[in-house]
Order: sequence, then structure tokens, then C-alpha cells
Amino acid sequence: MTEQVLVFDTTLRDGEQSPGASMTIEDKLMLAHQLERLRVDVIEAGFPISSEGDFESVRRIAQEIRTVTIAGLARSSKGDIDRCWEAVKGAAKPRIHVFLATSDIHLKYKLRKTREEVLETARWAVEYAKSLCSDVEFSAEDSTRSDLPFLCQVIEAVIDAGANVVNMPDTVGYTFPTEYRERILYVRDHVPNVDKTILSVHCHNDLGLAVANSLTAIQNGVRQVECTINGIGERAGNASLEEIVMALRTRKDLFGVDTGIDSQQIYPSSTMVTNLTGMIVQPNKAIVGKNAFAHEAGIHQDGVIKEKLTYEIMRPADVGIKESKLVIGKHSGRHALKKKYEELGFQLSDAELQKAYNLLMKVADKKKEVHDEDLIATVRNALRVAPPVYKIKYIQSTGGNQLIATATVILEKEGQAMQDSATGDGPVDAAIKAIRKITAVDSKLEQYTVRSVTGGTDAVGEVFMKVDFGKVAFIGKGASLDIVDASARAYLDAFNKLIHYQAALEEDQAEAKSQ
Amino acid sequence: MTEQVLVFDTTLRDGEQSPGASMTIEDKLMLAHQLERLRVDVIEAGFPISSEGDFESVRRIAQEIRTVTIAGLARSSKGDIDRCWEAVKGAAKPRIHVFLATSDIHLKYKLRKTREEVLETARWAVEYAKSLCSDVEFSAEDSTRSDLPFLCQVIEAVIDAGANVVNMPDTVGYTFPTEYRERILYVRDHVPNVDKTILSVHCHNDLGLAVANSLTAIQNGVRQVECTINGIGERAGNASLEEIVMALRTRKDLFGVDTGIDSQQIYPSSTMVTNLTGMIVQPNKAIVGKNAFAHEAGIHQDGVIKEKLTYEIMRPADVGIKESKLVIGKHSGRHALKKKYEELGFQLSDAELQKAYNLLMKVADKKKEVHDEDLIATVRNALRVAPPVYKIKYIQSTGGNQLIATATVILEKEGQAMQDSATGDGPVDAAIKAIRKITAVDSKLEQYTVRSVTGGTDAVGEVFMKVDFGKVAFIGKGASLDIVDASARAYLDAFNKLIHYQAALEEDQAEAKSQ
Repeated sequence: MTEQVLVFDTTLRDGEQSPGASMTIEDKLMLAHQLERLRVDVIEAGFPISSEGDFESVRRIAQEIRTVTIAGLARSSKGDIDRCWEAVKGAAKPRIHVFLATSDIHLKYKLRKTREEVLETARWAVEYAKSLCSDVEFSAEDSTRSDLPFLCQVIEAVIDAGANVVNMPDTVGYTFPTEYRERILYVRDHVPNVDKTILSVHCHNDLGLAVANSLTAIQNGVRQVECTINGIGERAGNASLEEIVMALRTRKDLFGVDTGIDSQQIYPSSTMVTNLTGMIVQPNKAIVGKNAFAHEAGIHQDGVIKEKLTYEIMRPADVGIKESKLVIGKHSGRHALKKKYEELGFQLSDAELQKAYNLLMKVADKKKEVHDEDLIATVRNALRVAPPVYKIKYIQSTGGNQLIATATVILEKEGQAMQDSATGDGPVDAAIKAIRKITAVDSKLEQYTVRSVTGGTDAVGEVFMKVDFGKVAFIGKGASLDIVDASARAYLDAFNKLIHYQAALEEDQAEAKSQ
Repeated sequence: MTEQVLVFDTTLRDGEQSPGASMTIEDKLMLAHQLERLRVDVIEAGFPISSEGDFESVRRIAQEIRTVTIAGLARSSKGDIDRCWEAVKGAAKPRIHVFLATSDIHLKYKLRKTREEVLETARWAVEYAKSLCSDVEFSAEDSTRSDLPFLCQVIEAVIDAGANVVNMPDTVGYTFPTEYRERILYVRDHVPNVDKTILSVHCHNDLGLAVANSLTAIQNGVRQVECTINGIGERAGNASLEEIVMALRTRKDLFGVDTGIDSQQIYPSSTMVTNLTGMIVQPNKAIVGKNAFAHEAGIHQDGVIKEKLTYEIMRPADVGIKESKLVIGKHSGRHALKKKYEELGFQLSDAELQKAYNLLMKVADKKKEVHDEDLIATVRNALRVAPPVYKIKYIQSTGGNQLIATATVILEKEGQAMQDSATGDGPVDAAIKAIRKITAVDSKLEQYTVRSVTGGTDAVGEVFMKVDFGKVAFIGKGASLDIVDASARAYLDAFNKLIHYQAALEEDQAEAKSQ
């Protein structure tokens, strides 16, 4: 059997730290299930001490996902490690992932600790985590800017303390293959107990080198790679899972190792991450971009027709891009719909299927053919776990270049209808102002993106919106044939998340009081 | 002085081959001027034989841009080379760039030639091009899958024939740093006359490795690098100019070479390419993505505040991202506006400035503060060189979840007003159907994207639309506070391009007849 490299997916932790990418607990659970289908080896589900929401989502993912290792992140302190263990201990395969910076620049400006203190803290943190959990990973933050002999000392100490995995992240996306190779070989040569652990890398993409650096590490004996779907993450993001996996597979001749990933789940995973986070993939993104397998130039098209191999080194089907013959329309039944959803990576319960079916038939009434993207937009509405508190009952809008844009909205809350109207700079602005009047909560829109999910004006338009309600901000999504309606739905989606969030907070406080 | 690597920008040729990225001649000229400000060494302006439009834009760029080498692409045939020379010969520094595939797979399936035939054709093509132009580049297409001894034979022959630059492209995005390094060193060791030419690379990004491969080539003696702004190009695109340039600069300690690029023009160039092509940059794109310099996680923010170096290896200002204090509003004068546009990378004539000013004051009437993105959206309207044949005089739209969406549009053509109305699936669909009725030309929408360019519902919405008119498709863009209005403008922009295109075609045919 080909030697395996472990895939540690951190879409739910580092990916979710992308500005604007925050997900609800339900979103995270849905994605965790998809990551299980993708067959990643480790899911880093969150950073439990960072917030109640993060704690709760790690805990629930640990309970629900049984075939994959579930890791939580913790700084090297008792409070962090205890909270992390609380969150992951229900998992079939829990892991505590502790980190501590080892570069002088981080020691000086962030930690304000000496090297000796860092060495001791790292050893202590792994020992303590190990006393709780049999699987412990240690990350030497900013390892690529750390003094190599000192880094080796730390690594030796944490392996001694029982670290199952030792990660050497390129935290600021600074290194280059030739340099990373030398550093990894140095560590392998100078840490006497290095064979007792699995070496790991975690590369950021600030200079566009995260994937090349990760692959170089694998070439030089590293056997766990940390990455995210679509390469999302802090700043320019993390190494992209799909690029690493497909490079290893396409150039098996060069690398001679493989991952356990089911590559046909790559495209459905990518689509889901875009849909859940609103982080759009550019058309020229490798593997999963819209153009990744498209040819424009006449010369290339000619070449492709003559022989696919002249310009294609991978087939779209290998990454789960289907030229499906299964067309969904007005006359499709539930069975066909269920099969189609399975192709797209969604496993629906009967109730969810029924809900999606009802929503879809309304779309199919107006359109001859329902596209994959319509189906995905619909299923997200159907799968929404928390029932919305406010619903749109009626909406109308008027706009134009010589009219004052005006909208009237009727919202329904617990059976009660509330109506108001407003003017604005265009009908979308008017509609949202009308909703604001009814809900009597002020807000600021931070992002607003529309995608026509099937590429025509008669398609379902999908709106992503980030709404800042003062103390917290939520991403809302809405899909409709009418762009104003879709925008209003997106706003209300974000607003409903606020309501749920406030209710959860009050519950917590009531609980705290009663204890 | 630090040794220099030449930057060969192919945004206008390979970049424009991205599905959906086609630009008009005016767009291309505007971008060529920006590339000159960016101080690239070579602009590959197009592939003259591929179409009348490509020929004409290469010819005009060659005439207008005087400080940069202007290259045109040609296959290794007399017709291609003659046509290319016709297009570039007016340049101050013209270059003919001929290519021929050297891999067995291309020889067998695409060219249907033997190795001997390819060797002879390559030598002949360079000799012939050289008889016309003193600067000739040869590209061995699919070089990374070519037999190395044969590749060396071809390279030796074309250098012998006078090739000033020899390019070894990774046409299908297949190679990896360690492999590319070996191949380049092999060529340098086995081609006796290799010192008489400049070696070049041109990397595609199918596995996410284009930048790492390009930098590896530079580390191993290659002194010209072919790349595009934002990494746009066929399939997953080309190596991204901004990542290569900033990696060389950030890791000067490692590479010891530099480019002549004015890095503060990087961000304006990126913004312009997005605006002209509609090819959106994902937020987690290195260097120019919206999040590239943004920090979300509390821990990182804390680190950044304590000392920028803990997480930042580049400063946003280095790539021209300005935190400008120059705020444009209702009371700003033309002088402030001109200065602001210069900051954003636009050099406006007095007439253009006046036009932009008039448009902007309408926006400023409705908003307290005009954002950079509003300014960019506005200048694009102001700079449109070909005057629109059809203009929107009046538009009104109504939509809602229980109404039939309806729009009424009055278009003006040569002083004549034409009115019609239509219903549709939402107000955008209705407005476009009304325009279709007036113009009496059928079309299909292939792409539809909306960006709120300042992130609020009261912002200018910018709509990108690809409209397929049967034989040709055009990208239309429209900006307005009202999303339906912006969509109608985008459609009409694409339609006006069709009218100009048809007029140019008729002129050509009339000319051909009269000769």
C-alpha cells in the first residue's frame, strides 16, 4: 500500500477565522458531516475557550462525528486546555491541540517570555494535556522564523512529554520550499526522539506559496498536513486541501505518497464552504474554480478535442464535478431529487427532502430546468435547523432612475403580521429600511454580494450579507428569483440569527443565576 | 545594483484568454497604460492573427506605449509571424514571440509532426521572425512534459537562429519546484550556446504551484518571468505577478534578485483588472485579496497591536493599499478629486476629470462619504471611449413575492426615445426583457454578478454581466445606487459593445471590397 499522509482539516477553526466567514453551529455541523464524507483524518473543530459558540460547536461535532479525530485548539495554559478537553472529550477520537510561539519576535512582543520559560511552558502544557487525553498535538507557532537549535530543543521536550504530533507552522506565510526543506531536515537530524512523533506542517499563503511549501514538507518526511477547503483562513488563507490532495495524486510519480481523501467529494465540499461562509472562490482558483477545467483559446480547444491529455492533467470527474444527466424539473419525483442531492454531497432525511421538494417545485413552476446551484440554494433553506422567528409574508418594491425607491414589507412573527414601508437609495435599501422599522433594531451592512447561481436573470439569485448589529455581526443568506426579495430574506436571516443568539445568551445567564 | 529579473506581463494575452475575461480595445489600452506605470518590462499585448480585434489592439498598444517592449504572439508559421510583425512594428521596442510545442504528446495529437520536423520548423520560425524584428522570443510549448535531450536540441537551434529569449513554459501546470529546478539546470548544462539568450518561464496554476515554480526558476538562473495581474489566465490561470514580485522583495535574503516593478502600483493594477474583466479576486487571494492584510482572530489582533511584525511580513502600503485621509464628498473640488484618482492609479485628462466629477457629484448628493470603490466605478463610466449608442433615459421597476415583476424602460438612440415594458422573474429580469423588446435582439445571460462596491445597501452596486448574442458575447458593467438600474446599464453596456463590434465588422468588409 502507498504510504499515507494524514489530512488535518482546519476549515472550521483557521478557516472560520477569515474575516467575514463566521458560521453558526448548525452550519458547522453540516460542514463537519461533509468533511467526514471527504474522509479527512482530523477535523479541527474550533478554539473552545475563544467563545461560548465555539465551545458548543466543538462539543456537538465531537458527539456527532464518530469516524474522524476531533481536535480543539488551546493555548498552553490550564484554562485553555481544560476548556478544550471539556469540548472534545465526548469524541470517539479526541485530540487536544496546544500551541506556543517559539520565534524570538513572538517571544519578545507577544508572549514577553524568555526561551527558558517557553521551553518549560511547552513541556508542561503537553504533559498536562496528555494527562487528560491520549492524543496531543503541539504547534510551535511561527516556527519558520524561530531559531533552529531552540526549535529543536522545544520539539525534543514536547515529544518527551508525549506529543503524538508536532507541527511546524509557517504562521506568517514566509518560507520557501528550499528553505523549508532545510529546516525540516535539520529538525529530523537534530531531534534525537523525532521518530516517536508524527511531524506536521500548517502553511499560510501570504506569498502564494502555502501549497508548494506543504508538498515540499511531505517530500521530506512530514506525514500530517494542515489545510482548509478553498484555502480559506486568516489573511491570505491556508494551504488549500484540494490542491495538495490533487497534486499528490496527479504527480504520484514524484511524491510516492497519498492521502485517504475521497477526491470526488472535493467539489461538493468546496461548494458547501462557499455557500456557508459567503467566501467566494475566484474563477481562476486551481481545482475548484469555475474556469479550472474550462478552455477558451481556440488553439487549446482544438488541442483538447484532438486529445484530452494535451491540456488536461486531471479530469473534472476526479474532483466530483459531474456532467450529470439527471435533470430536475417540474415532473421530477422525490426519489430523483434525493439521488441528485446525494450526487451533490447532501444526505437528506425524509423531512428535509420533503421541505426541499416543496421549495423546489415553486422554482420549477417558473423555469424549465432546475440547475445544480438552484438545488444547493434550496437545500440550504430547507436544512436551516433553527426555525426563523421572523418570516417574510409579503414584499413589494419599486425603483427607477427618476422615482424614489419604495418598499413595503409584511413580516410575520408568531402568527402576528407587522407591516411597514420605507424609501431608500434603490429598492434593496428601501426593503431593508422597512424591515428595520418593523424590527426596531439598528444595524449596519458590512458586506453585500449577489451571485446569480445559475447565470441568467431568470435564475435564483443568492444574496450574502454581513450585518453588524453593534455588538455582534451575522452573515445572512437569501435566495429568490427576485433580487430584492432575496436581499430582504438575507437580511432577515441575519436578524433571526441575532434573535437566536440573544435567546441563547439569556438562557446561559439564567442558568448561571440558578446555580 | 541588485541583479534584475525581467517581468513579462501577459494579462492582455493569456489573461484575456480566461473564459469570460474578454476586453474591448479601449479597456486594453487603459490597462496597457497602467502596466507601463507598474513598470513591467514586456507587455504581451495579444495574439494578432487570432482576430481583427486582437490585431487592432496590439497595433494601437504598440503605437501608444513607448517605454515598454510590446510583444505579439505567433505560431511558427509565416502567416502568423507576418501578421504579428504588422501589429507590433510600430512599437518603440517590438518583439515577436513565436511558439511551438515540443512534448511528444503535443507532437502526436496536436501538431502531427515528427521531432525532426519540429526542430526544423522552430529554427526556421525564429530565423524568419528575426529577419523582421531584432527582438525574438521562442517558447517551447509544454516544455515540462518534453523529452529533455530533445528540448535541448530545439533550444540550441533557436538560439543559433537568433532567439533573444527562450521560454520553457509549464503549459499545463504540471511541474513541481524540485523537478523544474532539475530540468532548468539540465538545460543550462546541456545547451552549449545557452549564455547567448535569456531563459524565461511561464507557469500555469492547475495544481496551485505556478508562483513557487516561477520563483524556483529564478533561483536557478532564469531571468525573465511571464505572469499576469491577479493570476488570471486559461483554466486555473497563470503565475500571479504580484505574488512573484512581493516574494522576491520580502525574501530578498533568499533570492538576491529584484524586479523593476513599482510595487505601489500593484493594488491599483489589480483593481483595474477586476473592473475591466469582471474576474473577481477571492478575499483570501495573496497580496491583493480583501482579507490579505486583515486580521480577525483576537489573538492575532492582539499580536498585531503589540508589534506589527508578529503577523505582518509586508505592509499594505508597499503594494499601494492606501489608508488615505483624502475623503471625497459633496464639497470636494476637482483638484482633490484629481489627486485622489492619482492615488488610485488613474491619470485623467481634464475632460475625463470633468466627466467623472459630474457623475460623482450625483452620488455625493445622496451619500455623506464617497468611497474608493465608488470612485473607481465612476471613472470607468467616465473613461468609456466609445460613446454609447443606446442610453437609458428612464427606468422603473416593481417586484415582490406576490406581484408580477414589471419594468418600464425608455431608451434613447440618437436623440430618439423608445419605450417598452415587460414582466419577468423579478425586476432585473423584467428590465432586461423590456430592453430586449426595444432593441429587438435576442440574447442569453451567461454570467451575472453584483458587488456592493462599498459594502452597504446605500452603496453603488456594480453589476457584471456576460451577454451571449449568438455569435459573440460581451461583458457589460453598470454601476448605480439602484440594483435594477445597474443591471439594466450593464446589459446595455454589453449591447452597445455589440453595436460597435458590428459597425467595425461592416467597415472592414466595405474596406475589403473597395480594395
